[in-house]
Amino acid sequence: MSDERPRVATAAIVVIGDEILSGKFADENAVHLIGELRALGVALRRVEVIPDDVEEIAATVRAASARVDHVFTSGGVGPTHDDLTMAGIARAFGVPVVRHAELERLLCGFYGAALEPRNLRMAEVPEGATLHVGSASVWPVPQVANVYILPGVPVIFRRQFEVIRERFRAAPFHLRRVFCRAEEGTIAADLDAVVAGHASVTIGSYPRFGEGAPSVLVTLEAKDERAVEEACRALVARLPVAAVVRVE
Amino acid sequence: MSDERPRVATAAIVVIGDEILSGKFADENAVHLIGELRALGVALRRVEVIPDDVEEIAATVRAASARVDHVFTSGGVGPTHDDLTMAGIARAFGVPVVRHAELERLLCGFYGAALEPRNLRMAEVPEGATLHVGSASVWPVPQVANVYILPGVPVIFRRQFEVIRERFRAAPFHLRRVFCRAEEGTIAADLDAVVAGHASVTIGSYPRFGEGAPSVLVTLEAKDERAVEEACRALVARLPVAAVVRVE
Repeated sequence: MSDERPRVATAAIVVIGDEILSGKFADENAVHLIGELRALGVALRRVEVIPDDVEEIAATVRAASARVDHVFTSGGVGPTHDDLTMAGIARAFGVPVVRHAELERLLCGFYGAALEPRNLRMAEVPEGATLHVGSASVWPVPQVANVYILPGVPVIFRRQFEVIRERFRAAPFHLRRVFCRAEEGTIAADLDAVVAGHASVTIGSYPRFGEGAPSVLVTLEAKDERAVEEACRALVARLPVAAVVRVE
Repeated sequence: MSDERPRVATAAIVVIGDEILSGKFADENAVHLIGELRALGVALRRVEVIPDDVEEIAATVRAASARVDHVFTSGGVGPTHDDLTMAGIARAFGVPVVRHAELERLLCGFYGAALEPRNLRMAEVPEGATLHVGSASVWPVPQVANVYILPGVPVIFRRQFEVIRERFRAAPFHLRRVFCRAEEGTIAADLDAVVAGHASVTIGSYPRFGEGAPSVLVTLEAKDERAVEEACRALVARLPVAAVVRVE
């Protein structure tokens, strides 16, 4: 009973792209993956948006790879000078970038006579990468250690994530939401008591403004559905009756 | 002439919140600040979304503070158990959390007789924090070293950032956008040549899909407007005439 929480798979997202940091494009891929990972029952621990820089990519991916179970990168995998993800991930693991025969074959098939020498950069991966192959219309997803390398263009990102998604499916999270009519300060002590008595449940408190009376959304979440229900009942029992607007 | 680029102020954003990582709320604050910083002429180097965890906050803020000129945190500053930003930033700089007399006075004035003891947690800041005070209707922004501490609720985040915004205004970035009808692979060598000849300009290449013919948006950006114009002219001169759809 020293650690009640069952082992939950963890993940990190690394978005690689000057274009996000400079506001030229809004990130869509981390937003999409946050929803996918939650639905899969995977606990996302960190999202990082970093520049197109080999050293930054290497250091960030190496650190994330050591800390979580699954790392997903987005962006930087095309044929131009600013596509540095393969070089960065290779450096993260101390391996060279090599041309992958299967990817080269796919590129030759796709472009035919129109193949530019430069397109072959898209056949380059860190040495030792494995490929996850979906249908013929979807580019394979390279994996190096626990890092899955996905592209930056959102429609292609989503399509490629589909290829690997079911690998990560785990027990779902259970969530209860308690909508309160109260200031956070007035329910903080009640929340403390419930937090202390239900260590396996993650409890969040989110004030909401601009809707008339002050209100707070309390969320209770865990993989263990019964633990969530017990914590939710304990919270509702502690709060003043008038403070609980509804429970979902 | 060994370093042509003038010194550009840099920034990082640290979004603190389980609710973003678990998909309960979409981030709005980093998105907002990306646009603000760009308009101010500040170069954003990194965005990190991290959990409500004192050690994670401390390590992330300490690292960001050492790497960039300005760090902005979002979230975790209310009165409940999951509001750990002040403790995390205090630990980042090896100082205790203390009650700030001016913030206590503001809380007492705001709540009057309805003040809950727990609300006074919102008067706590890392020791040595300075306050940026705007109008009476806006909560002051605490600063510790080069870290500005902002709240998670988007409407309040934006209002508080207004208080400090003009501190960061610098020379603007100049941007040119060249819309090309081409595959990235066919223009990659031309891009390389322009990149090599215009080291002070940041050049990005972004393929666009699903609009009929393959197309690429090339962006050229720097603080030096003349350098951007020269790089843009050099690129257009290199590309096949039919490949350039328009320049903005």
